[in-house]
Amino acid sequence: MTVTRADALALDRADKLAPFRDRFALLDNVIYLDGNSLGALPKATPARLAELVTAEWGRDLIRSWNIHGWIDLPFRVGDKIGRLIGAEPGSVVVADSTSVNLFKLIAAALRLRPERRVILSESENFPTDLYIAQGLIALLGDKHELRLVAPDAVAGAIDGDVALVLLTHVNYRSGRMHDMEEVTRLAHAAGALILWDLAHSAGAMPVDLAGSNADFAVGCGYKYLNGGPGAPAFLYVAHRLQRVFHSPLTGWLGHAAPFAFDPHYRPAPGIASAIVGTPPILSLAALEIGIDLALEADLAAVRKKSLALARLFVERVTESCAGFDLTLASPSRDDERGSQICYAHPQGYAIMQALIARGVIGDFRAPDILRFGFTPLYTRFVDVWDAVDTLRDVLASGEWDQPAFKQRAAVT
Amino acid sequence: MTVTRADALALDRADKLAPFRDRFALLDNVIYLDGNSLGALPKATPARLAELVTAEWGRDLIRSWNIHGWIDLPFRVGDKIGRLIGAEPGSVVVADSTSVNLFKLIAAALRLRPERRVILSESENFPTDLYIAQGLIALLGDKHELRLVAPDAVAGAIDGDVALVLLTHVNYRSGRMHDMEEVTRLAHAAGALILWDLAHSAGAMPVDLAGSNADFAVGCGYKYLNGGPGAPAFLYVAHRLQRVFHSPLTGWLGHAAPFAFDPHYRPAPGIASAIVGTPPILSLAALEIGIDLALEADLAAVRKKSLALARLFVERVTESCAGFDLTLASPSRDDERGSQICYAHPQGYAIMQALIARGVIGDFRAPDILRFGFTPLYTRFVDVWDAVDTLRDVLASGEWDQPAFKQRAAVT
Repeated sequence: MTVTRADALALDRADKLAPFRDRFALLDNVIYLDGNSLGALPKATPARLAELVTAEWGRDLIRSWNIHGWIDLPFRVGDKIGRLIGAEPGSVVVADSTSVNLFKLIAAALRLRPERRVILSESENFPTDLYIAQGLIALLGDKHELRLVAPDAVAGAIDGDVALVLLTHVNYRSGRMHDMEEVTRLAHAAGALILWDLAHSAGAMPVDLAGSNADFAVGCGYKYLNGGPGAPAFLYVAHRLQRVFHSPLTGWLGHAAPFAFDPHYRPAPGIASAIVGTPPILSLAALEIGIDLALEADLAAVRKKSLALARLFVERVTESCAGFDLTLASPSRDDERGSQICYAHPQGYAIMQALIARGVIGDFRAPDILRFGFTPLYTRFVDVWDAVDTLRDVLASGEWDQPAFKQRAAVT
Repeated sequence: MTVTRADALALDRADKLAPFRDRFALLDNVIYLDGNSLGALPKATPARLAELVTAEWGRDLIRSWNIHGWIDLPFRVGDKIGRLIGAEPGSVVVADSTSVNLFKLIAAALRLRPERRVILSESENFPTDLYIAQGLIALLGDKHELRLVAPDAVAGAIDGDVALVLLTHVNYRSGRMHDMEEVTRLAHAAGALILWDLAHSAGAMPVDLAGSNADFAVGCGYKYLNGGPGAPAFLYVAHRLQRVFHSPLTGWLGHAAPFAFDPHYRPAPGIASAIVGTPPILSLAALEIGIDLALEADLAAVRKKSLALARLFVERVTESCAGFDLTLASPSRDDERGSQICYAHPQGYAIMQALIARGVIGDFRAPDILRFGFTPLYTRFVDVWDAVDTLRDVLASGEWDQPAFKQRAAVT
């Protein structure tokens, strides 16, 4: 049965998450389906940044490290993220970038499995996860192997040679989602450790790191956590591993007594040794606003709406875009997919630029993927309805077929 | 001849840098002598951040990476820093923290000197420089040695075993300054590489990396560059080394084609391979404001005023604080000192807290150092005069001797 635009509007009226949209600074002439690349701006962020800059940095200057608790921000914001990803207090900290955090954790994992030589990942993993492993392996003298298998071959490839299983929970391109609990169980059964990259799941759905018995995790602050461009990342180390966890990036703020200025490194207890340099306070304050907003929502409701948005998108494309050479590149089953829908098209890049020119912002992922992300705190059912309508218009008109839309920008 | 307060005011009236003070948001009831820990807030920063957040992130969203040139910010701001430190365009990039950048460069240096096993530094170096070297050495299997010698023994200790000389140009505690050109020459004569940490010199005085033939450098954005708390750091790789430079932190944005999403790492040419993850745009924008301001000033004039401020400080302490157990802990010669003056006192911590309570903000560095930093863009001669007056009052009254001033805060 065809869903009409009126039906989509009715779904929005019935949506308990609908009031969250007004908490974000989104223009009415834009349909933003790229919150999985850069989350939208919470309306509360500019005022918080202005206060931080003017009253804390400007007026209280260096004293703010104590009186405004700047020194605790990485832990305070980390614990808040922990509530979104099923991590206990004291097991998450905000620091550095996802890539740098991957380096710390992969190195720590290899040190905990000195007799094993394989890092197992999937060929479709986000490149930085693979690159960081490659760089570390080269640094360690090429004694380890990064073994890449197809996404659905991961479970079967976990054997006694594997030191670390390195996976992204939800694939950046296809949206394919791993079964965190099951793969973690298989890794542990083989004596391996596991590291989950939550870039495309933290804030988008319930995640249960502790319940899944995960060892390590990293994630991104600027996607579903709405922390702003280049927001700092986070990392998780299970409590049971914190006593044996050693980060190779031994910076002064990870020292047990940073202000003793001892020339010899001695790691701080717990998650604190994963901190390296001085935390980026402006970015941390912006990130906290995004996370506070996410914490107000029920993540089960977020997930439910995300799946409903995705199903509506696919239904509408199936109905209205047949014959335009779009191939669904995401899993069709809800339980195998994150919060996005992707289609392959040989002219994916130009089509996405034409869509963006019409105010429907998704993104393109090489070689041929049109990616549409759903962020239930601000994506409406009518947005999905209108987006597919625009997609059909762009395809039917052939308006994407012009040089301006084929010219690749620096950032695609 | 005693300098009176009227003399100090006359020096300010004659100071060509004096107009810069009004470009910073400083209160009149505070004398801020801690710009070498956290630089003051430029008045232009809040508006730039508001524009970035509201118009770029909020309105233009993901498109800002291209249309507002976010992707180029690390290079654009890096080149601006380059003009402050004598580095050619394309040899400086803003990324990560000083600590993380040290890791990249120390690892790269060891790779370039595979037959050598020693990293030479000084026992008084800032701890993170030493800690990062220690962490890397442990990661590489303890085949290297971090050899620490007294500051004045560095030159004599550079021998054929040394792979890398790792020094901070201006010491964080004493203000002691190395002769960059001479130590670099000695390092190269012994076949070693050299890495300069410019945390306490970039923006405080003329630095000439290229003219000194330096190999690598790192530096901090939140001290004399006034980039804000936890501002990102920078790193320098001499052009002649960029073709053989390999960072072990091989993140996706250091890839030759990050948006090709190739599973195999291939470094970007030039300095770009020193980038790891997504750059922190909010912090970069704030940093750029501080640097633009520094670029307006003549660094030779900045250095000249810095030395005059320091001399006035020492003269006044010598005259008015005799008998209070203060020991000058900085070199007395101008050419051996950065932009700060330090005194040792057994009760240094409490004395500094009492000074801060009176609005004179310097800082304390364990075990016993009172540190006073001079930032010629906003420190006035009368500030120095008044600061020493207050110091004498605090010492003469003994008001520092109370529990509230002895209780150590989290950040000292």
